Amino acid sequence: MEFDIAIHNGTVLTVNGDFDIIEDGVIGIRGEKIVHIGSGSDRSIISGAKYLIDADKGIVTPGLVNTHTHLPMSLFAGLADDLPLKQWLEETIFPAEAAYVTPEFVKQATLLSCAEIILSGTTTCCDGYFYEGHVASAIETSGLRAVAGQGIVDFPAPGVANPVDNVDHAIRFVKEWAGRSETVTPSVFCHSPYTCSADTLKKAKAAARRYNVLFQIHAAETRFEADLIRSQHGVSPISYLDRLDVLDGDTLLAHTIWVDEADIDIISRTNAGVSVTTESEMKLGSGIAPVPDFLKAGVVVGIGTDGRASNNNQDLFEEMDFTAKLHKVNTLNPTVMDARTVMRLATIDGARAIGLGGVTGSIEIGKQADIIIVDVRKPHLAPLYNPVSQIVYSAKGADVKDVLVAGRPIMRNRKVLTLDVDEIMNKAVEIGNRIKRREIES
Amino acid sequence: MEFDIAIHNGTVLTVNGDFDIIEDGVIGIRGEKIVHIGSGSDRSIISGAKYLIDADKGIVTPGLVNTHTHLPMSLFAGLADDLPLKQWLEETIFPAEAAYVTPEFVKQATLLSCAEIILSGTTTCCDGYFYEGHVASAIETSGLRAVAGQGIVDFPAPGVANPVDNVDHAIRFVKEWAGRSETVTPSVFCHSPYTCSADTLKKAKAAARRYNVLFQIHAAETRFEADLIRSQHGVSPISYLDRLDVLDGDTLLAHTIWVDEADIDIISRTNAGVSVTTESEMKLGSGIAPVPDFLKAGVVVGIGTDGRASNNNQDLFEEMDFTAKLHKVNTLNPTVMDARTVMRLATIDGARAIGLGGVTGSIEIGKQADIIIVDVRKPHLAPLYNPVSQIVYSAKGADVKDVLVAGRPIMRNRKVLTLDVDEIMNKAVEIGNRIKRREIES
Repeated sequence: MEFDIAIHNGTVLTVNGDFDIIEDGVIGIRGEKIVHIGSGSDRSIISGAKYLIDADKGIVTPGLVNTHTHLPMSLFAGLADDLPLKQWLEETIFPAEAAYVTPEFVKQATLLSCAEIILSGTTTCCDGYFYEGHVASAIETSGLRAVAGQGIVDFPAPGVANPVDNVDHAIRFVKEWAGRSETVTPSVFCHSPYTCSADTLKKAKAAARRYNVLFQIHAAETRFEADLIRSQHGVSPISYLDRLDVLDGDTLLAHTIWVDEADIDIISRTNAGVSVTTESEMKLGSGIAPVPDFLKAGVVVGIGTDGRASNNNQDLFEEMDFTAKLHKVNTLNPTVMDARTVMRLATIDGARAIGLGGVTGSIEIGKQADIIIVDVRKPHLAPLYNPVSQIVYSAKGADVKDVLVAGRPIMRNRKVLTLDVDEIMNKAVEIGNRIKRREIES
Repeated sequence: MEFDIAIHNGTVLTVNGDFDIIEDGVIGIRGEKIVHIGSGSDRSIISGAKYLIDADKGIVTPGLVNTHTHLPMSLFAGLADDLPLKQWLEETIFPAEAAYVTPEFVKQATLLSCAEIILSGTTTCCDGYFYEGHVASAIETSGLRAVAGQGIVDFPAPGVANPVDNVDHAIRFVKEWAGRSETVTPSVFCHSPYTCSADTLKKAKAAARRYNVLFQIHAAETRFEADLIRSQHGVSPISYLDRLDVLDGDTLLAHTIWVDEADIDIISRTNAGVSVTTESEMKLGSGIAPVPDFLKAGVVVGIGTDGRASNNNQDLFEEMDFTAKLHKVNTLNPTVMDARTVMRLATIDGARAIGLGGVTGSIEIGKQADIIIVDVRKPHLAPLYNPVSQIVYSAKGADVKDVLVAGRPIMRNRKVLTLDVDEIMNKAVEIGNRIKRREIES
């Protein structure tokens, strides 16, 4: 057999339906796809490969899937912390966005996030922001796979001076990026039920249906929002969105915390996906999403980091660890959210939640070769009794050695091959210094 | 001025009483002590140093203080997860300890933990286990600072076949190690109020008082324990320990979760310290310690990782992040446990909780030079608006570049200088393989 790339000498966590684990596994890749999965005893696989990657007894897993982030917010990380969401948004983030966010800012901040994301083992991310064409271009440069959503709010936003034009602006982005990239898929991202009118939401979802793209929305994130929607519309945020007919299998709800049993039933019935961003929701004190209840109801749940400004990092390994532990302590039941369940959320379930379940999120023949290798030659990862436990509870992004997306190595031995990381950091420091000095970008 | 070592070209977080932050700071070290703190403009400091450490624009902080761990448990990490504490202890940990824990196991596991701890920026740890003389020796080899507590339970334990001898065994350890080491201080560690009788607790505390060492105990960790103590003694675990007169400023309570207002008053009145081990308590589903209430009551609180088998890592950076975020979401108040408060817990307050407040935990003249340097040339750490936020919410152990303990560099540019890390990992893998094959150690 001939392969463009073979990966060997590692423990392969397939995260397929049976969660098969192959000790001393071999993966054969042709073009962008996985075409063979076997065991190391078959030497012909290895000898038939043009390019051989030695996992060095490490753990080989599907690349992680970050189902909710705002990549361009990396340049605001640490600008303000320890504040409630509303105050943090209104007093720091919105003014900073108005003052500093330009196409160049978005490009540099996205590249910075992509570097972080690659270095921490994520191969797919689902983004929502403004100037999304610039976000998508920067993601493409990085080699990452992504769903990129143009942001929609009913007030002036970066790149959309006139809110009357907000949905059309998003549609133009979707049309421009439809089929343009092998790895970047467009989407529309309505900020929330309280920053978008019913008309905006309906129009944006109709466009998403027309162009067959993911519709993303923050929903039921804070008690403030839940109370507001109830006072305005007489129902919960989820019930309100359902009434507007914006929930279906191509809708992703983010930060979905303030929900009751009836809301969970609606989400389950409509097949909407949910992205939980545990660390951000904890840091902002927003609340605890009922993830075990979502799973019991059959809701597809993915894990996201949220933007770096509210987390403050985009390391999905850490996010898995937080997500497992938070629900154990919240239910006083250490058996919930076991390591396998959590690893599924961060890979295949996340892929399903953003509409890429057939493409990525597991190591299976026919899928895109989105694969990472975790170096276990670290004191905190030795010895190795249970590789899934090790991935969820012990490993961190910095332990990832190699990253492939669509069969293309984009990091080898912790060197990012697609980006000039030093130059990106220099520019980040430069922009940060300008913001610290309160210089307004033009 | 002449210095043995000068550290320059970094942002110094002193964590002194005013939390002074010095941009472009300089620290002069003579012998094991900090003798000068100034700013980089003073070139004579730098030129007067025999050995110069360039922080390379990084963040210079006190070495972190891990107030509660069981270093030799690293070799059990990942052996069993996602189980309740009682089942995890009784079905996995206690049998494994009975089968495998020997002096050689303890030595190798401790060295493995020390490597992990140094590589993640901790300079002081407070341990409690069995064969503690072997733990202490291994810690000394690593160059770390530590309080090492010989474990006491009322049933046969590793190295203490006859429980009648348990307290005397601990006293022998304390006498052997009193004044023996510059950096390792002995202590006694009663496992808990439910595994030690009232007589054992009183005798052990009396010995700790006689030899002026720290008395450590797990207390009020689970609802099971709280209910048990109440059914046996009619009062809460804290009230019970107070009645036995084992609480004072030289007592450290670990995992103190199941407490009410009256218990917090007792802890505050007796000046006992508390070690919160957030990640372990979350993972075991034990509960959430009322840390903001402890702080309001003036209780000295430190942060610990617990042993690696229940966490599953000993990275205090991650522990800071978890501790800040858990209490924000638990109180639905993002302003509690702000970054500075949490950083104090992980440094100076931790040092105070384990009786080393005058020795370590802050960068102040006259204190031991226990100092770490965090490399900020990483995509997830650029740009740098607020170094304290960066330390608590963004940095991880793997970002630590240099570690000094008592003025001695024990890690430079991520190379541990005191330990053969590769050999330690090889031995860990070897012992792990024997345990996987269920071979009984002799």
